[in-house]
Amino acid sequence: MESLQVGVIGYGYWGPNLVRNLMACPLTAVAGVCELSAARRAAAGAAVPGVPILETVDELLDRPLDAVAVATPVTTHYALVRRCLEAGKDVLVEKPLAANVADAQALADLADRLGRVLMVDHTYVFSNAVRRIRQLVQAGELGDIYYVDSDRINLGLFQSDINVIWDLAPHDLSIADYVLGLQPRSISGWGCAHADPLIEDIAYVNVDYSDRLMANFHVSWLSPVKVRRMILTGSRKSLIFDELNTSEPVKVYDRGIKVSETTEDLRRFRVGYRTGDMWSPHVEPGEALRSMVAHFAECVRERCEPVSDGRMGVRVVRLLEAATRSTRAHGRRALLSQMDNLYV
Amino acid sequence: MESLQVGVIGYGYWGPNLVRNLMACPLTAVAGVCELSAARRAAAGAAVPGVPILETVDELLDRPLDAVAVATPVTTHYALVRRCLEAGKDVLVEKPLAANVADAQALADLADRLGRVLMVDHTYVFSNAVRRIRQLVQAGELGDIYYVDSDRINLGLFQSDINVIWDLAPHDLSIADYVLGLQPRSISGWGCAHADPLIEDIAYVNVDYSDRLMANFHVSWLSPVKVRRMILTGSRKSLIFDELNTSEPVKVYDRGIKVSETTEDLRRFRVGYRTGDMWSPHVEPGEALRSMVAHFAECVRERCEPVSDGRMGVRVVRLLEAATRSTRAHGRRALLSQMDNLYV
Amino acid sequence: MESLQVGVIGYGYWGPNLVRNLMACPLTAVAGVCELSAARRAAAGAAVPGVPILETVDELLDRPLDAVAVATPVTTHYALVRRCLEAGKDVLVEKPLAANVADAQALADLADRLGRVLMVDHTYVFSNAVRRIRQLVQAGELGDIYYVDSDRINLGLFQSDINVIWDLAPHDLSIADYVLGLQPRSISGWGCAHADPLIEDIAYVNVDYSDRLMANFHVSWLSPVKVRRMILTGSRKSLIFDELNTSEPVKVYDRGIKVSETTEDLRRFRVGYRTGDMWSPHVEPGEALRSMVAHFAECVRERCEPVSDGRMGVRVVRLLEAATRSTRAHGRRALLSQMDNLYV
Amino acid sequence: MESLQVGVIGYGYWGPNLVRNLMACPLTAVAGVCELSAARRAAAGAAVPGVPILETVDELLDRPLDAVAVATPVTTHYALVRRCLEAGKDVLVEKPLAANVADAQALADLADRLGRVLMVDHTYVFSNAVRRIRQLVQAGELGDIYYVDSDRINLGLFQSDINVIWDLAPHDLSIADYVLGLQPRSISGWGCAHADPLIEDIAYVNVDYSDRLMANFHVSWLSPVKVRRMILTGSRKSLIFDELNTSEPVKVYDRGIKVSETTEDLRRFRVGYRTGDMWSPHVEPGEALRSMVAHFAECVRERCEPVSDGRMGVRVVRLLEAATRSTRAHGRRALLSQMDNLYV
Repeated sequence: MESLQVGVIGYGYWGPNLVRNLMACPLTAVAGVCELSAARRAAAGAAVPGVPILETVDELLDRPLDAVAVATPVTTHYALVRRCLEAGKDVLVEKPLAANVADAQALADLADRLGRVLMVDHTYVFSNAVRRIRQLVQAGELGDIYYVDSDRINLGLFQSDINVIWDLAPHDLSIADYVLGLQPRSISGWGCAHADPLIEDIAYVNVDYSDRLMANFHVSWLSPVKVRRMILTGSRKSLIFDELNTSEPVKVYDRGIKVSETTEDLRRFRVGYRTGDMWSPHVEPGEALRSMVAHFAECVRERCEPVSDGRMGVRVVRLLEAATRSTRAHGRRALLSQMDNLYV
Repeated sequence: MESLQVGVIGYGYWGPNLVRNLMACPLTAVAGVCELSAARRAAAGAAVPGVPILETVDELLDRPLDAVAVATPVTTHYALVRRCLEAGKDVLVEKPLAANVADAQALADLADRLGRVLMVDHTYVFSNAVRRIRQLVQAGELGDIYYVDSDRINLGLFQSDINVIWDLAPHDLSIADYVLGLQPRSISGWGCAHADPLIEDIAYVNVDYSDRLMANFHVSWLSPVKVRRMILTGSRKSLIFDELNTSEPVKVYDRGIKVSETTEDLRRFRVGYRTGDMWSPHVEPGEALRSMVAHFAECVRERCEPVSDGRMGVRVVRLLEAATRSTRAHGRRALLSQMDNLYV
Repeated sequence: MESLQVGVIGYGYWGPNLVRNLMACPLTAVAGVCELSAARRAAAGAAVPGVPILETVDELLDRPLDAVAVATPVTTHYALVRRCLEAGKDVLVEKPLAANVADAQALADLADRLGRVLMVDHTYVFSNAVRRIRQLVQAGELGDIYYVDSDRINLGLFQSDINVIWDLAPHDLSIADYVLGLQPRSISGWGCAHADPLIEDIAYVNVDYSDRLMANFHVSWLSPVKVRRMILTGSRKSLIFDELNTSEPVKVYDRGIKVSETTEDLRRFRVGYRTGDMWSPHVEPGEALRSMVAHFAECVRERCEPVSDGRMGVRVVRLLEAATRSTRAHGRRALLSQMDNLYV
Repeated sequence: MESLQVGVIGYGYWGPNLVRNLMACPLTAVAGVCELSAARRAAAGAAVPGVPILETVDELLDRPLDAVAVATPVTTHYALVRRCLEAGKDVLVEKPLAANVADAQALADLADRLGRVLMVDHTYVFSNAVRRIRQLVQAGELGDIYYVDSDRINLGLFQSDINVIWDLAPHDLSIADYVLGLQPRSISGWGCAHADPLIEDIAYVNVDYSDRLMANFHVSWLSPVKVRRMILTGSRKSLIFDELNTSEPVKVYDRGIKVSETTEDLRRFRVGYRTGDMWSPHVEPGEALRSMVAHFAECVRERCEPVSDGRMGVRVVRLLEAATRSTRAHGRRALLSQMDNLYV
């Protein structure tokens, strides 16, 4: 079977990773790389001898391509993705899908209308650990989910065009979207800017899904230590995903509370605690980016919807936009109107 | 020198710890314990043979006492502390000082008016680790503080009269008060109730001190694992206090960002990262509760203000009250009017 | 039912712990404490008002006693235990049983002859974690045991009468004895002395049980960090006991090797690796010393053999003696003659 | 300046890493790769298009080369290295230098006689952490070294031609050689074989340097968890090197013992304990293999002795051989005759 011919736009921070994985994946080939910076074109040329390195998108789209992967700054996503879709290409785009909800929605709609595959590189959704967690949650292993708490903090890398929410929270928001499969009701943000007064470098994003389910995401570029930890507490069991614990990234705790209403007084609850075993399911090693690339190739070949399709892309952007707005309004909670078509 | 004769009211969860430390401290002696429950009186009698075990506060106050330690549920603090102060006793009371700001303020004012020592048992303020952290911060070792992030989470113990904010946040709020010595401008809370729909069992409390300094406190009774960790990020260095790491509870990181405005464009900042040594100062072992008891005895003897005096007690209660109110108003931020007399 | 009246000899480092647990255990009471040092007698008097504090063993044995607990330096064990046994008392003695094999054997024989209970306080044998590990091993959960590796290291406490092997290794040797239930074939020791040239302060003790099962115990008073970790590797699963991990002291790993002989060449083996789940069984909290005291009381009442009886005491002393001798002979391996009566 | 043209023999487990680093290093170029296996030649061809991939050493040596890197099984080292040296090439060879002391010594002597550079890839010697540790030790920061304890354990990878000592201990022995710079007096080994009865898969290697300095190395292919930890205890300070702690690989502890002889009794020592700060010096990130390759290129260019020269190679092989022999003689300690020329 023929390899999918993929053109890559952008060879900055993430582009090299994409190119490496597109070349390693047996389903895909890199048909060309375009990049504005001469220095980076030279780097690309050295890294992948034999692949055409181009300066403009025109030149890239003139070549025989099945699909395009866009790895440029988020503010350029809308124009580039639109152009590629209109040129009849299937598109893989770095997260987040676009710089605002309107643009993101327009891209998702356009892909639908044109019948093209549009996939957002929410890489975590393709990690074996997150897939395992989704299975456990969807199978009811944890019971009702009570809350989700996440820390995604480290020193750097400061971005000059987007704040820490737009930089780091797409990971957590896409994981929560994929694992929980629920519509958020409202969102708040708290944040603070230090290096550049216009760009928040620490933030807390709080999403509520129901009266009994809340998620909180702590993102920071200013932590002295790196932490990548998500806790999911459930009525039956609880789970911790610690990405930096490479040998045991997922731990499931058979611990929780037992609530019994007392008869004499409906307002009084007796709360007991259960403490049981801990279990860490084996997670197959394997690079998430490799699985992501393979999934894109399969969706293109089979003409089916990717897991991280345009609608997931819109859902994440909607939360990023609302969280940043709330942060700048001192944490004022933003209601998220029902957007049913986003959650089919 | 004579030991300070201290009467103890309440022999429930915390009372036995207080009694044990009052007996072990060479400056203090237990002159009597009063407790409503017959079962607990029996337990007290077995644990401290020779100490009078009484049923009512009247009986206790009839005995020759210098001071009283109140270790009862928070809703009873106001009446009990007031009564002891009016009986001419110096008072040590469990945290938080009272169940609302008005009561807390009234007690602090009453103690002032009567010239009695009123001390709140904000135990952490007396731990060697927190004292060391305060020295480092006050000496400017960390530079400007950028943010404070804290996790105080574990499974249980569910309280039936107060929510998790009132139960656990007094620790973090008193540590922040003591270490930073700053007036908060506003506070928000997010929380969720599961076991009892009226009592939040997880919460996030966010305090802002200035445009560039924010603190966030995560408290929970529903975490599968116990975490006690506070991060203080500063412009020069950062610090992590991990209470469960008994050998190295305090770690100071010589890491941070370097910001330089670029000339060509005032909106652009160049942000660099410094990564240097880590240093864990030795912290003398020693029970904080023992130091707290000794400090109370010294304040009584010397007639001076305790570190955790009534004003600190009021400041903490003010934040607890506002945080709970904000939590129930979907995170609406509460401005904290300047209360200058609280921060002298 | 009447409490067992226990007299305690020695109120130094361990004596207070014994006394506290004998008082807390509903099956036992402290009938008297004797101690040579006046300062320690005063401390005992303050700690346990109401209990007779005596100077000599004569005075203690004159009182109505069912049993005696001996918590004195190991060189005094033989004379004291013998005297108590001959006085018709059941005896609990601190580990190790005696300062040499001959003395230890004589005490075990004497207890047998007189029909008295002789129990050695090998405390770990009574910890819930070690009991759980024994169950797992004895049930074949780990398959054949391949090797045991242990670190018991920290800074201090330097002993002036015994080396680090006699101080720390009794814990590991008694755990191995209890968990494995096997007779060692030979033993070696490597060690080094620094503070006092005659007293080894670091040592490695290596015990072989068969051609395919070896145990290695690292004990040290000179480590900058405290480690308490034992690995048991088996043909089916492996296990780690980390005493300092209070929330998950026991972890069972479904990992190992798969060996298949290849047909073409009997000398060649194909070795594959299995990597599966990890599982941490819940271990009930509870002080091992309390269980030990209760077990002693039950054995006295029921006239039955303690788990850590005189024979286990002799087995441990035999290994300590041989290991120290090997250490001083540059690691020369000592064969352990079959002593069948020790392993009934 | 011209790049050093390096031919690579062997493209199995380690060869690809060498090739990648030789290509990335600006001082070196890969002039050809030879490999017996057709499958691996194909892999090499795909990985490094443009580099000649050859079948025989003859073909490789026929090409214009400055130096050769040998990455084949240890039993082939002697013949291959000898041939390359005799062909007038400088040689970099994988650890260990050869399969026995006689061969290793012969290679070192041959290189000396021919005036060729012979360097052994003891990679750790070029890691920034180990270099930092050497600086600290050589500067006397730790005082006198009291003992070295190391764990290098994990599950796999079982080798079919060498035991776990020859596989893993070269790392520890070369680190100790480099950091301490001392001549061992004697060596012992304990080990056990499980998968293949002729190949030890767990072992303890014990090296003594003096009456007060002993090192112990635990190596294993059968541990359920991966550990890479070395403790160096000194009279002034102690140090822990934990390679898996990527953020703080080196920790220096200001802890130790204070010994004072007492006057009344020369046999009695008073031992006190100091507990002070811990300090983790920043270690620059950077791949050790890259530094190793650059060092080889510099030594070739400057015609100077590598840090890990043939003599270090012989010293390590001598210990591996003696340790294995001791292991098979039940731990019988092997005296290491003074080989002064090895320690110049």
